[in-house]
Amino acid sequence: MTRARHGGDVYGAARDLKRAPDRLLDFSASINPLGPAPAVSRVLKGATTLLRHYPDPLCWDLRQALAAYWCRSPDAFLIGNGSTELIHLLPAALQIQHLLVVGPTFSEYATAMARSGGQISLIVAARHDLYQPQPELVLETMRRASTVGRSLDAVLLCNPNSPTGVAWEAGTVRRLARETARLGLWCVVDETFADYCESVSILGTVLPPKTIVLRSFTKFYGLPGLRVGYVVAPPAVTKRLSAHQPPWSVNMLAQRAAVAALQDDRHRRRSLQFMDRERIRLQRGLERLSGVQVFPTKANFILMELPVGYKAARVVSALRRQGLLLRDCSQVPGLNDRSLRVAVRTRDENDRLLKALASIVRVTR
Amino acid sequence: MTRARHGGDVYGAARDLKRAPDRLLDFSASINPLGPAPAVSRVLKGATTLLRHYPDPLCWDLRQALAAYWCRSPDAFLIGNGSTELIHLLPAALQIQHLLVVGPTFSEYATAMARSGGQISLIVAARHDLYQPQPELVLETMRRASTVGRSLDAVLLCNPNSPTGVAWEAGTVRRLARETARLGLWCVVDETFADYCESVSILGTVLPPKTIVLRSFTKFYGLPGLRVGYVVAPPAVTKRLSAHQPPWSVNMLAQRAAVAALQDDRHRRRSLQFMDRERIRLQRGLERLSGVQVFPTKANFILMELPVGYKAARVVSALRRQGLLLRDCSQVPGLNDRSLRVAVRTRDENDRLLKALASIVRVTR
Repeated sequence: MTRARHGGDVYGAARDLKRAPDRLLDFSASINPLGPAPAVSRVLKGATTLLRHYPDPLCWDLRQALAAYWCRSPDAFLIGNGSTELIHLLPAALQIQHLLVVGPTFSEYATAMARSGGQISLIVAARHDLYQPQPELVLETMRRASTVGRSLDAVLLCNPNSPTGVAWEAGTVRRLARETARLGLWCVVDETFADYCESVSILGTVLPPKTIVLRSFTKFYGLPGLRVGYVVAPPAVTKRLSAHQPPWSVNMLAQRAAVAALQDDRHRRRSLQFMDRERIRLQRGLERLSGVQVFPTKANFILMELPVGYKAARVVSALRRQGLLLRDCSQVPGLNDRSLRVAVRTRDENDRLLKALASIVRVTR
Repeated sequence: MTRARHGGDVYGAARDLKRAPDRLLDFSASINPLGPAPAVSRVLKGATTLLRHYPDPLCWDLRQALAAYWCRSPDAFLIGNGSTELIHLLPAALQIQHLLVVGPTFSEYATAMARSGGQISLIVAARHDLYQPQPELVLETMRRASTVGRSLDAVLLCNPNSPTGVAWEAGTVRRLARETARLGLWCVVDETFADYCESVSILGTVLPPKTIVLRSFTKFYGLPGLRVGYVVAPPAVTKRLSAHQPPWSVNMLAQRAAVAALQDDRHRRRSLQFMDRERIRLQRGLERLSGVQVFPTKANFILMELPVGYKAARVVSALRRQGLLLRDCSQVPGLNDRSLRVAVRTRDENDRLLKALASIVRVTR
């Protein structure tokens, strides 16, 4: 059985390399290096009783917790088996057949559109803009597409964007979303990496009409193994999406762990403080590598470019053999073959990465 | 947010009744009353590390364990987020637009077909046959449908069937499946309740072509809260289904717990022995209730009919207020409004059910 390679395939790498998964350092998935909140471990300790019943199909407690956290109605939330499940619900549930993707960005939306028989159009930000897309270009493309009747149904904005790490200000996203709605299109805002930079999120105020925000417990809350993500949208939209979701999609441990994670303010503050410090340290370390280009980032990962003459695919392979997993981004449309993405992990782990990279790329000083 | 009522909604009932979920007795979902294998609790105790990575997208270890258990190739298995996810993959992945359902049976296949824009045709076994469908009628319907070109794509056989509890012998299912394949149709055999009566399963020998078997860890293995089920089919079919499944559908705790559950032979034997004894005891207890009809069953639940003059919906409501959840089957096409399904639970719990029913329906002796 084959399947497209994503980042974070620690178990697959462990099999290939004949090593235990915990002897690998995974920089290819961008998960909170401090792990999930301590409250989550306590939930799991008493979890046996949670196995014995079907999960709550309405995810009631988690939607209540999210409603309190975001000061919104519980009906504005739909929980998914990871945000990935929700991405795959969008085309059929909202009848999206033609999606405008603002890139360079990750491939899951393109996969979801292809599966449902739809198509995407792609606008790619330029490298000389440090991959920061120009809002005016997005607006112009949308308007043109709707004028000439090429039947665009929706626009996707990832904010912050993966794998580039760039983010628009919340005001810019709101302006784009309002204009999108004016043209009668859906605006899908993927905020699965926004927890490390909440100021760019549009969840702080009323959402423009036809706007759908995706969030995740995978990254900041450190629960990739359990699968839990959510949509924030008008209740009529969460209802439409819910009608396309199989029952009991979200397992009960995920529901309980997510509630616990959301309520742990202390762990949230520690995680933010840690990332603010360590991201800068890792960026500086990478910048000291001769000829390496480090792109600015708002998220908990860094897009970098190897010096001319190096290939990301080859470097990623070499480091993989040493047990360090990185994300080769050479296949992402709009990026070049020297592009790779690294997660910010703990201080010691990042030092191991820097050392390994330094043995490949010469250090300036 | 509304959603069709299924059985097993303990959390919803707990909210309605303002009681803790563990103060309810759920006879509406048919889960192993002995709970999951002790090995599963041990897996959960060390589970925190399983949260930190994305799940294995290939479910490698679980497919290896299933391959060893069933003496088949690992490629013959596809794991799902519960068998429900797999049911919902079938129409699009195998281009099933018209499904023949042999009933009376549960509604998930009809829901899945409706969602994908397809249709079902239903053959319903007669009450005077104790709801045991006649294979000749199924064959005749299939042949007629394919002769007059009404474009049947697939046939669904639930064996054992829910909520009736009837089962065909494996030889009969194989005969039907071979004939189905001869007509160029898919044969979907839902064996999610077969663990309590493996002799009726067709997994003991080579599968006929175009045959797809669904199994689950929800019922016998007692893991409804975690979500894990699987398909057994030719590798080309599991590959097609897999291409329609979002990545990381099966969380890592589910994968590990299922492996542990599958390998615990002692718990399996205890569970089977317990059910063989307790099902008969509960059947006899129900039969002693005046005017109650108890249907024969091969599964870990019992279909019963209240005496003339009673309504299942009303009795189920009354018992619900006492904290006992039963499955009202009056809306299942082909059953009457006195039909309900009860799970076989532990001896004490079943006695509580019998007592509660006796207070509604007079006891003969």
